[in-house]
Amino acid sequence: MTAAMGKLRAMIPRWARDYHRGKVPGDLTAGLVVAMLLVPQSMAYAALAGLPPHIGLYASVLPLVAYALAGSSAVLAVGPVAVVALMTGSALEQIAEPGSVEYIAAAATLALISGAMLLAAGLVRLGALANFLSHPVISGFTSGAAVVIIVSQLGPLLGLQVDKGPAAAMLVSIGRGITDVDSRTAAMALSALMLLWLARPTVPALLRRLGLPGHAASLLAKLTPMVIVLAGTALVASTGWHQQGLAVAGELPDGLPAAALPTLEWPLVTALLLPALLISILGFMESVSVASALARKRREHVEADAELRGLGLANLGGGITGAMPVTGGFSRTAVNADAGAGSPLAGVITAGIIALVLLFATDLFATLPMAVLAAIIIVAVTPLIDIQGLRRLWSYDRADALAMGATAAGVILLGVEAGIATGVVFSLGVVVWRASHPHIAEVGQVPGTEHFRNICRHRVNTRDGLLMLRVDENLFFGNAEAVASSIQQSLRGRQPSVSDLVLIMSSVSHIDATALETLEALQRTLADNAVRLHLAEVKGPVMDRLEGTHFLRELDGQVWLSSQAAFAGLPGHLQPQS
Amino acid sequence: MTAAMGKLRAMIPRWARDYHRGKVPGDLTAGLVVAMLLVPQSMAYAALAGLPPHIGLYASVLPLVAYALAGSSAVLAVGPVAVVALMTGSALEQIAEPGSVEYIAAAATLALISGAMLLAAGLVRLGALANFLSHPVISGFTSGAAVVIIVSQLGPLLGLQVDKGPAAAMLVSIGRGITDVDSRTAAMALSALMLLWLARPTVPALLRRLGLPGHAASLLAKLTPMVIVLAGTALVASTGWHQQGLAVAGELPDGLPAAALPTLEWPLVTALLLPALLISILGFMESVSVASALARKRREHVEADAELRGLGLANLGGGITGAMPVTGGFSRTAVNADAGAGSPLAGVITAGIIALVLLFATDLFATLPMAVLAAIIIVAVTPLIDIQGLRRLWSYDRADALAMGATAAGVILLGVEAGIATGVVFSLGVVVWRASHPHIAEVGQVPGTEHFRNICRHRVNTRDGLLMLRVDENLFFGNAEAVASSIQQSLRGRQPSVSDLVLIMSSVSHIDATALETLEALQRTLADNAVRLHLAEVKGPVMDRLEGTHFLRELDGQVWLSSQAAFAGLPGHLQPQS
Repeated sequence: MTAAMGKLRAMIPRWARDYHRGKVPGDLTAGLVVAMLLVPQSMAYAALAGLPPHIGLYASVLPLVAYALAGSSAVLAVGPVAVVALMTGSALEQIAEPGSVEYIAAAATLALISGAMLLAAGLVRLGALANFLSHPVISGFTSGAAVVIIVSQLGPLLGLQVDKGPAAAMLVSIGRGITDVDSRTAAMALSALMLLWLARPTVPALLRRLGLPGHAASLLAKLTPMVIVLAGTALVASTGWHQQGLAVAGELPDGLPAAALPTLEWPLVTALLLPALLISILGFMESVSVASALARKRREHVEADAELRGLGLANLGGGITGAMPVTGGFSRTAVNADAGAGSPLAGVITAGIIALVLLFATDLFATLPMAVLAAIIIVAVTPLIDIQGLRRLWSYDRADALAMGATAAGVILLGVEAGIATGVVFSLGVVVWRASHPHIAEVGQVPGTEHFRNICRHRVNTRDGLLMLRVDENLFFGNAEAVASSIQQSLRGRQPSVSDLVLIMSSVSHIDATALETLEALQRTLADNAVRLHLAEVKGPVMDRLEGTHFLRELDGQVWLSSQAAFAGLPGHLQPQS
Repeated sequence: MTAAMGKLRAMIPRWARDYHRGKVPGDLTAGLVVAMLLVPQSMAYAALAGLPPHIGLYASVLPLVAYALAGSSAVLAVGPVAVVALMTGSALEQIAEPGSVEYIAAAATLALISGAMLLAAGLVRLGALANFLSHPVISGFTSGAAVVIIVSQLGPLLGLQVDKGPAAAMLVSIGRGITDVDSRTAAMALSALMLLWLARPTVPALLRRLGLPGHAASLLAKLTPMVIVLAGTALVASTGWHQQGLAVAGELPDGLPAAALPTLEWPLVTALLLPALLISILGFMESVSVASALARKRREHVEADAELRGLGLANLGGGITGAMPVTGGFSRTAVNADAGAGSPLAGVITAGIIALVLLFATDLFATLPMAVLAAIIIVAVTPLIDIQGLRRLWSYDRADALAMGATAAGVILLGVEAGIATGVVFSLGVVVWRASHPHIAEVGQVPGTEHFRNICRHRVNTRDGLLMLRVDENLFFGNAEAVASSIQQSLRGRQPSVSDLVLIMSSVSHIDATALETLEALQRTLADNAVRLHLAEVKGPVMDRLEGTHFLRELDGQVWLSSQAAFAGLPGHLQPQS
């Protein structure tokens, strides 16, 4: 009996077992604030994915509870997010007509597949695999996706019908239709846009002047989107503009989503596999990066594999309640933490409030203008365009800046999937390219030490007839020939001529078979020119492999433990501080 | 006038300008011996590519002269070779019916495109690009190709009709048809096979016993294939077996090939681009590796870009004389050098003899049995299956052995192009995988020196409270997280606790933006745990980049020039030779 109790207890998440009353006020406030943000955002992101707004609300109930069961972050706010919504739309577009029954069903299937993938990855601990997306690629992807999202929202914002497609095509189509702009829609959208922008610095300042404490003021300001949604909805309801063609959300179905397994037909599943994989990876990376950043600030710990399991369960939950893929959102999580969330209970409270909205308040949103949702989306994603990050990368590492730029350009010009592929191939290509173009430095002894440094950067001692070269890369098929000819270059035309060449292997952690052959050939060429080849500072694992090779048997020089040993042990007239 | 003369003189290849009479006997002998080897081999390789035998002879005239104009090897024997013939057949199969007029025309187009690619690569000096095929991949490719070639020759060898396809399918088809084996064909082929095998050790010994000098004996033995061809042809001519269904070469067209541009229709050209590229790369690599190996032995020099131009001209020459792609052959080049070739004139002489054969002796080969050609091919390619090389690789570097095995398996199971792709992707994947799994060693001071080594491999001095870690790889997005968590692992549970951590950067030649962020996060985590982070032996180019970064500004430890400086300068009780 106690064993069964123990098992049951082990299934309760750690945070629930450790819960104490002190956290209740924070969790309650945060749950409420996030819910007020999530209602408009989740409907907007559903629209961005080509889905009816209530699907966004569905995705904000069970997934949040499911995440709380397995996730490791105390403050992650799970739900529909902009980038994943864009990817969802891009995946479903190829399957069915946006808004159709098949389209909506496929969204749930996509969430289910993605959830299964994340859960499986979490169970076999594949969290580390996500490292193959470099930060510049992720940042370029997010920036490019934000641009595409903004362009995609210009149609609803201006009351124009624009076919989905690459960003450039959408812009052209908007340009052509500019005379058909619905002035009422545009006016409402631009007012919303302006209010949302102003809200950022103005509202908190105003509220503070009205006597509210600073923190409460900044929290209340987060409610601006909700206020604008309600105001816009009321305006349309009272004017009846929606009967004159202004696009609104329309009647939303009442009540909670029914739990049911979505369609799992084989052709649909196979068509969704790749998009689900990309959504899983990028959703996971967005989520884990915000969760880790906040955990570091709060001296808490986020475990990548637990996050995979948590997000996996969340998406499975979305899949069986007719929702769409979800992940942890950047800005919403920050709001959650800011509002005092102390445990995943905050998320459960958010889910409870959304459930209440679904049960009792969907009528409220029948005349919600789509243009207002477009404005909310645009304001939410604009900060994702990371121009400053690009500039910072450019000054630190041009290749990384190019990877970011290429990914963003790929997303904007070619689409989501091709954009990621561009970024991954580019960044792996840079790794291979760098390894293929190794830095080779001639070194000498730093006077008074046993330390050896580049003769071009430091004042060092050298010896006549002795050339010491440090190869700054593993030796492999991609650089072996280049290294060998660069070494021969260094030898050519040396006066007085070199009798001993020491290769300092401190940077070489691996020599592959091709490079070994090249070294053998180099050794023969050097022997023909009466130059002895030595090695120094060969690392243990490299030496283990070289032991017993033809190269080492034929080596006419020595293997020295350190550069100093070679420098001291080999002949040659000392040249101080050249 | 003299300027014009000078220009004209500059167009004459260097070897011709430097030619002296002493080389004549060697070039003559070599030219003749290689021609006697080339007649049967070139016809056999044409058959292997699905072409009529005389196309092989066409490929042995102008290409050899063209190579002599621009190539840099004194001994390279250019002409049809087995692996390139296999690739040619595999490319043309998808275009036309083997042996048809279109098929034969496409072979010339393929040679022309490949020639243009090689020449262009040589002119813009792309020789180094070939380094992206590692030796294990090339060796795996050659071994796999040899297996496919042998299997493809079992049909002609046994007088069976076998559809071309993957090696396994051909074997099954041969197994099914085994009862239909033509006993006369099989008997003739197996005799030829046996004689060719015996010829290797026996004939030279026999000839030496007959009083011939050793070298002449081994050269004469090279004529065995020619003797067997002539004997087989005579046998069939006298018995008339070809009228009873035994496959023979048939009437070959008389005379030299006419010079004409091959068909260059756009769809044909685009379909041949990829195969031409692969043929160019692999043909070039086979050729340059044998040329370099022999040049090293002969203390001569082979220039990769000159080789590209030489082989480019050779294939252009083949293209305009209705031939097939060519390159420098492994065994034939060895024979050429062995027979005393001292300049490309030997190749020109070979070409002259083949031209004479085409002009006056094609009738001789009308009753040449195809089974004998199959036997010649099998004996020629068997040594290419490099089992010993695989074993050597396995003992040196398993990843290289796997790359070789994967490439060979790819070629055998999936075909030529998929096989190469498998090998390239696998070997680049290994590079990335290795970089992602860096070796990290804790080091200490080798007593009496300023040299620092792995504490697990050497008896070294360490200090209480000071942890010195050497990271053996560049830091990039693929390994940054792994390195950071491995460092934290090393710190955990240390007693007495560590107050200073020194990262020795001697192996780090590059830190990308993702890794820099990871280092920043690591620095914050360490600061939280009251551990100061130091760097030592940071290379010049890395330091240049770090200068001015947030990471370096926030670093609470120091950047030490050497490990010794950090070891001497930081506090902690000395632990001798732990």
